[in-house]
Amino acid sequence: MDETNEQSLVEQALALIEERKFAQLHDLIHEENAADINEIIDEVTPEQGVIIYRLLPKELAAEVFVEMDPDMQEFLINAFSDAELKNVLDELYYDDTADIIEEMPANVVKRILRTATPEMRKAVNELLKYPEDSAGSIMTTEFVRLKKNYTVEDSLDLIRKVGIDKETIYTCYVTDDKSRLIGIVTAKDLLLSPLQNNIENIMTDHVISVSTLDDQEQIALLFSKYGFIAMPVVDNENRLVGIITVDDAIDVLQEETEEDFAKMAATAPTETDYLKTSPFVFYKARIPWLLLLMVSATFTGMIISNYETSLAALPVLTAFIPMVMGTGGNSGSQTSVTVIRGISLGEVEFKDFFKVVLKELSVAVLCGLTLFAATTVKLLLVDKLLLHNDAVDFTVAITVGLTVFATTICAKVIAAMLPQLAKKIGLDPAVLSSPLITTIVDALSLLIYFGMATLILHIA
Amino acid sequence: MDETNEQSLVEQALALIEERKFAQLHDLIHEENAADINEIIDEVTPEQGVIIYRLLPKELAAEVFVEMDPDMQEFLINAFSDAELKNVLDELYYDDTADIIEEMPANVVKRILRTATPEMRKAVNELLKYPEDSAGSIMTTEFVRLKKNYTVEDSLDLIRKVGIDKETIYTCYVTDDKSRLIGIVTAKDLLLSPLQNNIENIMTDHVISVSTLDDQEQIALLFSKYGFIAMPVVDNENRLVGIITVDDAIDVLQEETEEDFAKMAATAPTETDYLKTSPFVFYKARIPWLLLLMVSATFTGMIISNYETSLAALPVLTAFIPMVMGTGGNSGSQTSVTVIRGISLGEVEFKDFFKVVLKELSVAVLCGLTLFAATTVKLLLVDKLLLHNDAVDFTVAITVGLTVFATTICAKVIAAMLPQLAKKIGLDPAVLSSPLITTIVDALSLLIYFGMATLILHIA
Repeated sequence: MDETNEQSLVEQALALIEERKFAQLHDLIHEENAADINEIIDEVTPEQGVIIYRLLPKELAAEVFVEMDPDMQEFLINAFSDAELKNVLDELYYDDTADIIEEMPANVVKRILRTATPEMRKAVNELLKYPEDSAGSIMTTEFVRLKKNYTVEDSLDLIRKVGIDKETIYTCYVTDDKSRLIGIVTAKDLLLSPLQNNIENIMTDHVISVSTLDDQEQIALLFSKYGFIAMPVVDNENRLVGIITVDDAIDVLQEETEEDFAKMAATAPTETDYLKTSPFVFYKARIPWLLLLMVSATFTGMIISNYETSLAALPVLTAFIPMVMGTGGNSGSQTSVTVIRGISLGEVEFKDFFKVVLKELSVAVLCGLTLFAATTVKLLLVDKLLLHNDAVDFTVAITVGLTVFATTICAKVIAAMLPQLAKKIGLDPAVLSSPLITTIVDALSLLIYFGMATLILHIA
Repeated sequence: MDETNEQSLVEQALALIEERKFAQLHDLIHEENAADINEIIDEVTPEQGVIIYRLLPKELAAEVFVEMDPDMQEFLINAFSDAELKNVLDELYYDDTADIIEEMPANVVKRILRTATPEMRKAVNELLKYPEDSAGSIMTTEFVRLKKNYTVEDSLDLIRKVGIDKETIYTCYVTDDKSRLIGIVTAKDLLLSPLQNNIENIMTDHVISVSTLDDQEQIALLFSKYGFIAMPVVDNENRLVGIITVDDAIDVLQEETEEDFAKMAATAPTETDYLKTSPFVFYKARIPWLLLLMVSATFTGMIISNYETSLAALPVLTAFIPMVMGTGGNSGSQTSVTVIRGISLGEVEFKDFFKVVLKELSVAVLCGLTLFAATTVKLLLVDKLLLHNDAVDFTVAITVGLTVFATTICAKVIAAMLPQLAKKIGLDPAVLSSPLITTIVDALSLLIYFGMATLILHIA
């Protein structure tokens, strides 16, 4: 990882652009990776971006174009002549074209479709039909298709002929005369087998495939489970319609992970890099959650108001409110994050509902007992003996200790149940359950606290 | 994704084991994927696991062995004859052997090393020297090495000869006579080039490589940035010592993601699937954090005790404590999670310190103004007019509103700074900063609240 070198690549490029030394700039970048060239383009004006783009060899230019920021793509397309646009489109895979089209305004889309070959237009239109986040929306239709009666030699010849246009040649797919997927052959199989062997004899016929409408996150997890570099996608009738490659699966994993992180931080996900995201975008992502959680605090406020006279009679109780609520909140979020991740990763299914609740209940009892002991001892040793808070006595310590115990149990059990129930009724476990769990656990911990106080300390 | 089929694979296998129909069991599983077979082994006794294992063809058996739970691996090795152990080891890649050795007790390690070939012993010992989480610890030493004067035909012949033992043949590495990495050639390049071409003419000489001591998470992110399927690892003198393959990179991404989730939920990460993790393991992962956060609540308790008489004089203030502290906590965690992820993903570096603080300050001002307005209006409309809480008047509403505004600003700025400072002094941003941010923000929000109350409402 030559961070220093990468650094200087951008800096060197910027200096050369500044001095308009385009021949040297060409030499500097014409063998770089697309991701690194886009880091340069991100730092310059759109006009300079066009200049850089035009210095690139055709194939690299297409790669750079695919990974580019949508605004820059739009700017480039508008700067292109029709011939230039056609050259780019000819280099693109259909799935990348479909992705680009989804981000462009209508007039640009029209121009792209007018310039594309009829074949590409048809393929792209097919791809655009699949719902967002489905296997169909991330698959590519450009793969190597073999027949079972081909020899290894036939297959290698075919790869030599068509391979340049395929997104991967490392896994080839064997289909029958109805286009149904019957096996896979890897390039490794082909390279290591005698040339006269039949595909039928070397293919793996136990093939794991996904359906066009399957969820992209579940598919990405299959890549991690099986270690595949490509996965076939079939339609209702088991006809092979596309493949998903591992680089797209990694992108999906990254995207879904960031979404989950955002939800757990009570903010909507933002799509761009941190430094490129404007404060206003962050504001819009965060403020709804802050307002929602503030509404939830209304309930706790109402509960406290209700016990105002009791608190006035025994003011020491007020000091422990944050600790009681905090412990409830932390206990609950430990459980909810763990369960929500378990659901996301497919480790936890609804049939495990009671197993999960029972497990969290066991953890809660262990944690609750420890916290009960810690709280009681801490109140008596630290608050009473060390800080000389005379209002703290044995019964107050037991009251707070029992509250912490009961709160931990309630918080963990509720946090174990809600995400699973949310998932069951078709809602996003993270989005629905976090604010709901917070609201319920906050209110409950106060009710338990005042309940215990009424019971043990006879406040009323 | 044939969830139903997978389901029934395990069930079918269990039924066949129950009835001791091993011939049928062999037919059922001998073409399955390693991950699926391990799902069966997870459900049976270790003795039955050995039976299943012995039904597998040699190559598949090795794959299943590699992915198996370490306890089961140990059980199997102890059940193996020396000849059986040798057979397995012969099928394993060196990096997988090294991983297994790291999990085994000393006597098993001795037996493995005694049985391994001298060549494997040497390679494994080399791999075991690299620190945990480094590139060296996840790389494999089995790759295809080419010379620049080879022809395409030579190279394909070499692949046919040695390819079966290599972890990937899809990227081949070109080294000079000092073993220094000078280029890469993909199997696609080889298959699509004329046989008499020289490697020198078709290789890519701009190669991105990592060093043996580079951090595994940063490397995994490079896979996602560049879309590679393998990455070369070089030593200090640019000599090629190994490669990292995309499947291992995905595992690293998954593992690091789970660690980050765990830290943000204030729990230590657990290594196994949710349902397989015992309550006691969860208890040990969670209780230290709950106790730590409880200590942090001591400070808030002390602050409240300090203002006990003021609260007694104006009891309505108590009711808004949870809302004020909650808003501070939520504002802070929105920022800290976002910044911590930015650091993890390499989007935020220390040189951006002030950019980040300034951005979060801007977001905080926007959020703070909105929350100020919402709070004041809510107190006057809901608490005063609707709930007839006569203790709430205009000055109380302004006091709470201003507190929420100031708390939001402080929380976001502190949460923006601490993770970056933690990283700078070499600590884990998530582990250090979450409890520290909570403690500081909780205490600060109360101090601001009582400060505002003293200033505006003249409580004392």
